[in-house]
Amino acid sequence: MENTQFRLAARPVGLPKDSDWQMTKEPVRELADGEVLVKTRYLSLDPAMRGWMNDAKSYIRPVGIGEVMRAGGLGEVVASRSPRFAVGDQLGGGFGVQQYWIGAADDRHAGLHKIDTRLAPPTTWLNTLGMPGMTAYFGLLEVGQPKAGETVVVSGAAGAVGQTVGQLAKQLGCRVIGIAGGKEKCDFVVDELGFDACIDYKGGDVRAGLKEHCPNGVDVYFDNVGGDILDLVLTRINLKARIVVCGAISQYNNTTAVKGPANYLSLLVNRARMEGMVVFDYADRYHVAVAALGKWLQEGKIKSREDVVQGIEKFPQALTMLFEGKNFGKLVLQVA
Amino acid sequence: MENTQFRLAARPVGLPKDSDWQMTKEPVRELADGEVLVKTRYLSLDPAMRGWMNDAKSYIRPVGIGEVMRAGGLGEVVASRSPRFAVGDQLGGGFGVQQYWIGAADDRHAGLHKIDTRLAPPTTWLNTLGMPGMTAYFGLLEVGQPKAGETVVVSGAAGAVGQTVGQLAKQLGCRVIGIAGGKEKCDFVVDELGFDACIDYKGGDVRAGLKEHCPNGVDVYFDNVGGDILDLVLTRINLKARIVVCGAISQYNNTTAVKGPANYLSLLVNRARMEGMVVFDYADRYHVAVAALGKWLQEGKIKSREDVVQGIEKFPQALTMLFEGKNFGKLVLQVA
Repeated sequence: MENTQFRLAARPVGLPKDSDWQMTKEPVRELADGEVLVKTRYLSLDPAMRGWMNDAKSYIRPVGIGEVMRAGGLGEVVASRSPRFAVGDQLGGGFGVQQYWIGAADDRHAGLHKIDTRLAPPTTWLNTLGMPGMTAYFGLLEVGQPKAGETVVVSGAAGAVGQTVGQLAKQLGCRVIGIAGGKEKCDFVVDELGFDACIDYKGGDVRAGLKEHCPNGVDVYFDNVGGDILDLVLTRINLKARIVVCGAISQYNNTTAVKGPANYLSLLVNRARMEGMVVFDYADRYHVAVAALGKWLQEGKIKSREDVVQGIEKFPQALTMLFEGKNFGKLVLQVA
Repeated sequence: MENTQFRLAARPVGLPKDSDWQMTKEPVRELADGEVLVKTRYLSLDPAMRGWMNDAKSYIRPVGIGEVMRAGGLGEVVASRSPRFAVGDQLGGGFGVQQYWIGAADDRHAGLHKIDTRLAPPTTWLNTLGMPGMTAYFGLLEVGQPKAGETVVVSGAAGAVGQTVGQLAKQLGCRVIGIAGGKEKCDFVVDELGFDACIDYKGGDVRAGLKEHCPNGVDVYFDNVGGDILDLVLTRINLKARIVVCGAISQYNNTTAVKGPANYLSLLVNRARMEGMVVFDYADRYHVAVAALGKWLQEGKIKSREDVVQGIEKFPQALTMLFEGKNFGKLVLQVA
């Protein structure tokens, strides 16, 4: 049995290119006692992966040159020498960009856990019920702390985290304004997800859009993009506003310095705060978020949208879709 | 009786220059019922005054062209038609840059209040027991929230706010590192005020200084300066660090855009926050801070240092001292 893998061949400068990856094939080895063999079905492609490719101190160790690229995913147990998991179990875990994962059933880094595909389809477990959903849930509730009637703005609104942030904020009784690229995404965000409005940063004027759609200012800004959009929102924040620094996809492939928010003194004028979050800090409460989000999903109160690319060999091209804003919804790579 | 005043003649571009001011003299008018006449003794010169000169939405209305420049100060009641204050009373209030202030004893904007010059000398009432001390007290305790054993870094360490921030943090059991311009200020901060160390941003390498003096990282950064120093501190912050955005004196006279903190994504990696504060929000608790700071001053546990410039006609030159880092301690203009 052969295992196709994508390994990091070089540290990218700017947008990752094909030569930054090496596709390898190796035979699947025998299982040792306590190990399981997982056949990867779906992999989650996320903006954060770009950061893991840099040799920089961060919240997680960089992927080493020659190592299989780190990725979360869903897979099926196809062989087991552990009492923990049986053949046929559907697992979530850090399987990496490869067709098969072998390791100890209790591997701390992989964090294997059974998922219930009756509650939601597999791709939703990589979206609303996976890391993006957990990020949205804890980032919005714990850091953003919106109150009913407040105005919440979220960038990357059609993306994995943004779609859940906005729908959660609607559930909480907030006015919700998305920012997304292109009319199609904006229509989806408003018509399907129920946001109050969505500003098209590609086709429109974000400054004017914020003015029009946030007549009472911005109380919570959930930032997935950084750059100029963060700077524009800073000019519209209210007293005691909260900015959740979740990501800065506009800056991840910079070959020059990150663009710092020139309008950050708006935090002073407005006694506002800007606070970072990393989803792993909330791991012991994921089950709470899964229960809440799962219920709302079943009741049809929130929706999830995934953009599924077929074939592990498409991994390099699929990943760059994120940075070009070409994915529509949570980007998922279907391996098998 | 003649009243010499400084009025805003033009909105400055960059550093305020002499032609941005108009010195006027007008006769002191008769008092109406309920009014008092205050002879200004000392005026507080503060970096925030630069912001009040811009025609921009902020936490306070800009000073209008032709208006007497806003300034807090101390003065003596020399005539009174109000039962509230008697001739000879020493008052604090928003008297503006002028020799005499006339107005209603209960004028809300002026905020007249008696001060007790037995507790501390007048200039201390513009420093540790005035706005700078209040800013230090509430900014550090309420926003910075340092705990014993944590490392607190403060920029503008020899300045009005910085000197009290650092001494307060020492009282709380923190390791305290100042950043100031020049050996003389740094020596003062360490030898007189008791900081653990002080980094000379003019003569030394701030990056290396932070590395040397903050071996366990930075838990609280009280920022008075912004710019490159903020960016350098961002690279050294700890998990859950707090950055108090109190000011950005390095950026106030920019003729180009403010330099945003390019390293702000360190907030994400470290789950840290950056939060603004404006002292006026704590007005109903100033008396608490005055009681605490006054006690520590009397016990010799904290010290205050003022830099007094003589003569109201020196106002324009004195103000620019702040932006050139030429003042040593809280800058005060002695009017009479």
